[in-house]
Amino acid sequence: MKTAICDLLGVDLPLLAFSHCRDVVAEVSLAGGFGVLGGSMFTPEQLEAELAWIDAHVGGRPYGVDIIVPERVSAMQPGAHADASDLLAAVPEEHRAYVDEILAAHGVPPAGRSADAWSVPSPDDLLDVAFSHPIKLIANALGVPPAVMLERGHAAGVPVAALVGAREHAIRQVEAGVDIIVAQGTEAGGHCGEVTTMVLIPEVVAAVAPVPVLAAGGIVTGAQMAASIALGAAGVWTGSVWLTTPEAETAPYTREKLLRATSRDTVRSKGRTGKPSRQLRSPWTDAWAQPDAPQPLPMPFQTLISEPALRHVDALAAAGDAGAQELATYWVGQGVGLMNEVKSTRDVVYEMASDYADAAARVAATID
Amino acid sequence: MKTAICDLLGVDLPLLAFSHCRDVVAEVSLAGGFGVLGGSMFTPEQLEAELAWIDAHVGGRPYGVDIIVPERVSAMQPGAHADASDLLAAVPEEHRAYVDEILAAHGVPPAGRSADAWSVPSPDDLLDVAFSHPIKLIANALGVPPAVMLERGHAAGVPVAALVGAREHAIRQVEAGVDIIVAQGTEAGGHCGEVTTMVLIPEVVAAVAPVPVLAAGGIVTGAQMAASIALGAAGVWTGSVWLTTPEAETAPYTREKLLRATSRDTVRSKGRTGKPSRQLRSPWTDAWAQPDAPQPLPMPFQTLISEPALRHVDALAAAGDAGAQELATYWVGQGVGLMNEVKSTRDVVYEMASDYADAAARVAATID
Repeated sequence: MKTAICDLLGVDLPLLAFSHCRDVVAEVSLAGGFGVLGGSMFTPEQLEAELAWIDAHVGGRPYGVDIIVPERVSAMQPGAHADASDLLAAVPEEHRAYVDEILAAHGVPPAGRSADAWSVPSPDDLLDVAFSHPIKLIANALGVPPAVMLERGHAAGVPVAALVGAREHAIRQVEAGVDIIVAQGTEAGGHCGEVTTMVLIPEVVAAVAPVPVLAAGGIVTGAQMAASIALGAAGVWTGSVWLTTPEAETAPYTREKLLRATSRDTVRSKGRTGKPSRQLRSPWTDAWAQPDAPQPLPMPFQTLISEPALRHVDALAAAGDAGAQELATYWVGQGVGLMNEVKSTRDVVYEMASDYADAAARVAATID
Repeated sequence: MKTAICDLLGVDLPLLAFSHCRDVVAEVSLAGGFGVLGGSMFTPEQLEAELAWIDAHVGGRPYGVDIIVPERVSAMQPGAHADASDLLAAVPEEHRAYVDEILAAHGVPPAGRSADAWSVPSPDDLLDVAFSHPIKLIANALGVPPAVMLERGHAAGVPVAALVGAREHAIRQVEAGVDIIVAQGTEAGGHCGEVTTMVLIPEVVAAVAPVPVLAAGGIVTGAQMAASIALGAAGVWTGSVWLTTPEAETAPYTREKLLRATSRDTVRSKGRTGKPSRQLRSPWTDAWAQPDAPQPLPMPFQTLISEPALRHVDALAAAGDAGAQELATYWVGQGVGLMNEVKSTRDVVYEMASDYADAAARVAATID
């Protein structure tokens, strides 16, 4: 199958795969799709190591990098290059105490409050690393990319993509010079808006044509890929579907929970990053939805308290701690209801391609 | 175009159109689709008049009737045949006062409290009327149809359809004997669940095959029809798209608001019927979302206070009252963002058919 995006990205399948795990990125690209490494959780040194590994394993196939550069940086944030301990000092005691309280209610000891537990690398440093590798796409996951990302991408002949959850945002992105719009419906795991994929894709396609649009949000099957093409998308951007592969970064107990979860077991919550993002529902997300809960902090401060706590929870859950197992959660979309068995990354790609062909033939048969 | 549902319903296009307006029902059926009259707002005498009119105008083309029979009737409800004044007597004074307060805040006088303003007909009486006409489909819009609906439908050779918002509900419907599942995503106008159309359709199709599934929720274009077929649906069930046609029941000022609305201007709220239903956002829906608002009453009691108030608002809005114009709202899905001009019902059908063909060809071209 071929769409406009295939030539632009040099791939056989218009299937982009976002993952924090280098193995998933390389395997998807090797199978004919396009892997995109989520780089925002890495230090520049870590990102360098991951991309070097990908270069050594991807056999020259194309891949990309995604980082999160929020368009509006909170006034609480001392500066783009602040180190984690400066930022952590700005977190109110009420929020630290509430995190400890959530854990304690499930018999989980506090996660510790070391600034080393989480870092907030400068986007500029991550871009330096990314552009020193043969990336074929650079994406910004939140808001209009900074001018430096657009300039460096265009100078290097690397298309710049941006994720949007609303038609109006897509128009602003294209005006800013973005080359590929990833229109992400509310059913998506991670940061998302309120409009669903079925409505958002045709809206965005009509608004930004001929700029290519990738459909995102809930897409875990080839039939959904075909539906996305029918809606006018040039391809799909996926994330959740890779989380239950053996190659993914998913914590072991969380993977089990994802396999059991239905499409009704996710929730859009500010409790993890400070902005609405869709996650597996757990007592952690419930706690931040309580009327008496502190208001989640603006990005990146909520992350500074949630990530160390949830990584601590993941470790205890893997060791069999019942309270931690209840609390365990991760970003995932409503498509989790269609993810019910472990399959290798390559098998997921091949099944999606095959399922796509069946669905496309089903549609073609109605107009014979 | 032909799908499995076309033969079952005797239509050329797998496009079902729900409307409270007989003109829309007849026009859709005459144009090759399948009109379904929403009958729950009528008394049996009114429904008889509407169906007689359709019979006289539909030229023998097939059409159906949809009524709402909630699966669990509230314990507050005195009995299925209670008249409106008995029911109205059970509405707490707090709720009546809150409605008056919302209106007063926008300079709108109270709507009056006459039991005549709204009726709650017995579903049995509506079924008697429906089955005395040559209907080709009977649908229940909420929960498993009562045994009498299934028995009468099957005895008459009339397929029975039911709307669902979750995979689990679809399985229960099929077990109860329902012939056609309408799987309605959270983007739908009216009563809806939390799972989006893009995820719900493949889930439900996989769960109930070979029972035909109609996709609903956000569908207002032919490209979305093609996407639905790609997802495995046998056709689509639409509602919102007809609201901006000249033939629809929509109050004049509300129609203007719908044409201006974006996909982000709807909200899922219990404030109109007591169950979550998607509506155009307005100060009315905002008022029921306030932390200090009374809890919406269980069905049908919330309807007894909301409908008279909102019909009063519609009348004042049409007469130019600014406060009423702000308050005006109606059930509509996120697809409202794609509904930006008035088109006749027939033109909507023909455009959807043409757009479908384009989208199907787009998908077919990728597998040539």
